[in-house]
Amino acid sequence: MFDEGKIVIVGASNVGTAVLNKIVDFGLASEVVLIDINEKKCMGESLDTSHATACVGSYNMYIHEGTYEDCKDASMIIITAGPSIKPGETPDRLILTKTNCKIMDSVMSQIVQYTKDAIILVVTNPLDVATYYVSDNFDYPREKIIGTGTLLETFRLRRILADYYHLDPKLVHGYVLGEHGNSGFVAWSTVDIASLGLDNMDEFLNHNYKLNKSMIEQKIMQVVYDVINLKGCTNTGIAMVVCRFIKAIKYNEYTILPMSSILTGEYGIHDVALSLPCMLNNTGIIKRFTPKLTDEEIEKMIASAKSVKSAMEAIEKKIEAVA
Amino acid sequence: MFDEGKIVIVGASNVGTAVLNKIVDFGLASEVVLIDINEKKCMGESLDTSHATACVGSYNMYIHEGTYEDCKDASMIIITAGPSIKPGETPDRLILTKTNCKIMDSVMSQIVQYTKDAIILVVTNPLDVATYYVSDNFDYPREKIIGTGTLLETFRLRRILADYYHLDPKLVHGYVLGEHGNSGFVAWSTVDIASLGLDNMDEFLNHNYKLNKSMIEQKIMQVVYDVINLKGCTNTGIAMVVCRFIKAIKYNEYTILPMSSILTGEYGIHDVALSLPCMLNNTGIIKRFTPKLTDEEIEKMIASAKSVKSAMEAIEKKIEAVA
Amino acid sequence: MFDEGKIVIVGASNVGTAVLNKIVDFGLASEVVLIDINEKKCMGESLDTSHATACVGSYNMYIHEGTYEDCKDASMIIITAGPSIKPGETPDRLILTKTNCKIMDSVMSQIVQYTKDAIILVVTNPLDVATYYVSDNFDYPREKIIGTGTLLETFRLRRILADYYHLDPKLVHGYVLGEHGNSGFVAWSTVDIASLGLDNMDEFLNHNYKLNKSMIEQKIMQVVYDVINLKGCTNTGIAMVVCRFIKAIKYNEYTILPMSSILTGEYGIHDVALSLPCMLNNTGIIKRFTPKLTDEEIEKMIASAKSVKSAMEAIEKKIEAVA
Amino acid sequence: MFDEGKIVIVGASNVGTAVLNKIVDFGLASEVVLIDINEKKCMGESLDTSHATACVGSYNMYIHEGTYEDCKDASMIIITAGPSIKPGETPDRLILTKTNCKIMDSVMSQIVQYTKDAIILVVTNPLDVATYYVSDNFDYPREKIIGTGTLLETFRLRRILADYYHLDPKLVHGYVLGEHGNSGFVAWSTVDIASLGLDNMDEFLNHNYKLNKSMIEQKIMQVVYDVINLKGCTNTGIAMVVCRFIKAIKYNEYTILPMSSILTGEYGIHDVALSLPCMLNNTGIIKRFTPKLTDEEIEKMIASAKSVKSAMEAIEKKIEAVA
Repeated sequence: MFDEGKIVIVGASNVGTAVLNKIVDFGLASEVVLIDINEKKCMGESLDTSHATACVGSYNMYIHEGTYEDCKDASMIIITAGPSIKPGETPDRLILTKTNCKIMDSVMSQIVQYTKDAIILVVTNPLDVATYYVSDNFDYPREKIIGTGTLLETFRLRRILADYYHLDPKLVHGYVLGEHGNSGFVAWSTVDIASLGLDNMDEFLNHNYKLNKSMIEQKIMQVVYDVINLKGCTNTGIAMVVCRFIKAIKYNEYTILPMSSILTGEYGIHDVALSLPCMLNNTGIIKRFTPKLTDEEIEKMIASAKSVKSAMEAIEKKIEAVA
Repeated sequence: MFDEGKIVIVGASNVGTAVLNKIVDFGLASEVVLIDINEKKCMGESLDTSHATACVGSYNMYIHEGTYEDCKDASMIIITAGPSIKPGETPDRLILTKTNCKIMDSVMSQIVQYTKDAIILVVTNPLDVATYYVSDNFDYPREKIIGTGTLLETFRLRRILADYYHLDPKLVHGYVLGEHGNSGFVAWSTVDIASLGLDNMDEFLNHNYKLNKSMIEQKIMQVVYDVINLKGCTNTGIAMVVCRFIKAIKYNEYTILPMSSILTGEYGIHDVALSLPCMLNNTGIIKRFTPKLTDEEIEKMIASAKSVKSAMEAIEKKIEAVA
Repeated sequence: MFDEGKIVIVGASNVGTAVLNKIVDFGLASEVVLIDINEKKCMGESLDTSHATACVGSYNMYIHEGTYEDCKDASMIIITAGPSIKPGETPDRLILTKTNCKIMDSVMSQIVQYTKDAIILVVTNPLDVATYYVSDNFDYPREKIIGTGTLLETFRLRRILADYYHLDPKLVHGYVLGEHGNSGFVAWSTVDIASLGLDNMDEFLNHNYKLNKSMIEQKIMQVVYDVINLKGCTNTGIAMVVCRFIKAIKYNEYTILPMSSILTGEYGIHDVALSLPCMLNNTGIIKRFTPKLTDEEIEKMIASAKSVKSAMEAIEKKIEAVA
Repeated sequence: MFDEGKIVIVGASNVGTAVLNKIVDFGLASEVVLIDINEKKCMGESLDTSHATACVGSYNMYIHEGTYEDCKDASMIIITAGPSIKPGETPDRLILTKTNCKIMDSVMSQIVQYTKDAIILVVTNPLDVATYYVSDNFDYPREKIIGTGTLLETFRLRRILADYYHLDPKLVHGYVLGEHGNSGFVAWSTVDIASLGLDNMDEFLNHNYKLNKSMIEQKIMQVVYDVINLKGCTNTGIAMVVCRFIKAIKYNEYTILPMSSILTGEYGIHDVALSLPCMLNNTGIIKRFTPKLTDEEIEKMIASAKSVKSAMEAIEKKIEAVA
């Protein structure tokens, strides 16, 4: 059947509804289902958005609240459920660990009753713990589970460097890697602008002062808390990240993006989910890359792995966490 | 200069930010400015959305918080400022009159210091009062002031009839006219589906029961309160309405849409803003149509005019209202 | 698998390549295959178009020349093969009958070896004869075979009336029905502009002269020969028609468009393919409508059916035609 | 005035019409004008394409044949006029020099009568000679004249490397520089894939054989002749190149793309147009970059400059050429 496909969004809060609206704006599915324990919110968002589909130029997408049974024939499931950091809270995603692992448990145990085919995009924080938890505790094909990871920080790297040099952010290449959170880091050895060489840009653009990389990196890691404090949440940037993944999958792009998945020995790291550049097609993750990082960057990667692991240990034995 | 243009959004609450995000998704401007007394909200929304522009496939749009001085070279100004109806509140947009007229006064008196060129789209409720107030109290070209009016109810008419007959809402033609609010009405004599005749659809689609038009109309007028009660506000439907107007203007479409403007004798009605089908090009409203309505529909139009006028009188003399 | 789908285009001449390019521009598939006896043309077009997919903002679609084996997993097959009317030739699509039925025979007998699942869009002229031939002579699900029919003339009706009244063509509703060719006719009883009533437009727009419908109709039926004489072929209008069908199918729109299929008693007509408004979803044609036409229009429909039938008889026994 | 802008296309052959259609598909203007000595072709293409604008989802763009007077209020002028290389012809764009300089002379002397504001995109071959000629012989702001140059070869570099490694071409960064033609070269020192390092890709993707760069380069420079021999012309790739420039300008992107302009001392080269990476905004070229090339690459650049200069000398004194 020739069909744009069915996407299920689990979680109808700020992020889930921002994702819904971008899916509608870009026409990425013929059917979109919202699931949330707050059914009224799902109904309200579906109704409101459905009115937008009556506009000339919109497609007659079918948007509705649903149940996990809708996962049966879903092409993709996007998990955004669970509370987020609030303005003023301790700026660390890992504190959400216990609550959100319980929520992942509840979500996944229902999904697996209906499908093992859909690609699952994990957006819930702490992202890498949630991705690990979802990948490790259920009998679901691992290559079909993708954590959005540091693609958002990578967008921020592009935007912030682009603003600094006053140019198009799509010219900025390179990665933020490791944890989606405080221990993530800019892999500066991968960063380039317009194929001209990052280190040449000051000269090319007549900047008097040398680029302060640590200042840029600080800004990237800080901006999430700025956004939360300024507007109360982050949602529109991450919604575009989600759509980037959807498009890469639907168009079978064989593209390479940073995303979170369980490492299997890269840089000597095992049994933790972190973001590395991975190749993606319409079946999910088909390859994970190990960029040739500097020693210092590799140390940061290992430190990031330890940081995420210790957060997981904080929930003691995984099985108890959900008892 | 060859440029996508600059759009200023006044008001960064639910509606303003939904509009911002659709403008970004559809690439409708090269620069978007958010103005709100809550400057932090403007900064937070700008930052978050700016990260989305770093995505491959997005344009390098310049999104930022600003001041009314930004109106100087704006192509379009979208006024969404002012409080909205809250869940559970008396379901009548007119109660917001006093507050929002004061806000319109503050907004417009600043806009006119910088421009009389931009097309102004009024979205603030009570829509028709706000549109009247903005059009009548400031020396601004009247054809450049457009109230979004009943285009949203018209989208809802399409969606609800489309759901009833299980077909594409873009097949439903016709108008909701009059007030954007409780006294608005479906002009059934204008409604058609797929050029097949509304009254033939039951037969064509083997419906056993005749279409209950008053039930449909009730649903259309009720759904706004349903959405507000279910999700706390309405924003995504109206954001698509705003984008429909932006596109019609930018592409100089000479299209005809229902929109609110001050009537000048249509159906004997003067000196009140209401929605009628109007023709739009890149200079604003170029023609207002007086559809051949039934007598009953004309009565509803006149009643709607009276209802809006009495709401305006409730703020007594307009000048005092803002003193 | 979450995938934009695979489209096979049979015929890489003016129409097939215009269709290819619109599919790429709109991102309507993840894989597009060109088949033509002129393999070099297929390779050249694939190569040239593939360079366009390297542009930022394009998707990594896989575009290549292929064979009928590619139909095996195709979502849709678009048949554009066969010669067209040349500039200066007798202006009647029916003269192409014999040649193109042979070509349809060759094309379909290969397609059915690989699939009965793909939706087949017939674009080859004489359109209704080709659609009949393809639908009737092969064991292929009839609802999955769609002739593009008079949707192109319907677009021309919109454009020509829109130019006449200087307004947006999307405001013009109604149908050209019957043959895709000389005996097709404007079903004026279905035509409306902006829900204002076609007959009111002269008054509303202050035209001194009443709309000359037969002059408009003549222009619609003549413009195809104008285009052929002016540029040597028609291809870009029909390519947009094809994309409209693709979108309606992929988004499971349940939309209603005029299209050609074998009638089964509508207006007493059997055993000939003609265009009537039909409802379309992702499984193909799900309903054919019989608009309430005037007696004069019904006569034209019957005459159109006779005209197409006599063209088919011109190829005598269908079986001999391909012997 | 809030308007998508007016684009004039000079030349309605294969390239001009492909450009027209992509502009319509992407909605890049509200008015598009075709100019050609073959007025019938312009009329035919305008008519055919205008029918596509009647499709739901298309904008009511105004497409028509015109005269140079249309340049008066144009936002952009795209020069595609002049004959191209035909299948089997000596594979060198420079042989077209004399003819096309005369044509540029005729085109520009008419344009300058009406505007010095529009950005001019030169697409006619030999591209660098034409760009030089247009920039040097008329009193037109030089930063507003852009030759599409090696952006097309750069797209081909991406596509060919992407096919070789079976990945998304948008991951391939770097430039083809110098002449748009036989003396252009891949600046391998600028080439990267997915920020992973070009030289690491064989290892990462388990290729047994090392990438043969000269074979890739040969393919890039050869493919234009392949396409011409296979399909008779090249047009769809270059049309996407043109649209990339249009978008970069309209969205005021400050992006960096390879494009042709008259060098002013870069690598010691003067008084010849060649492609280097340049920064572009809505006023035209605002900066030309001199990437840190290897000595060998700089030699190729100088050789490319000489090759283009000698072609220009072949037309002796420029003034005589157009006498």
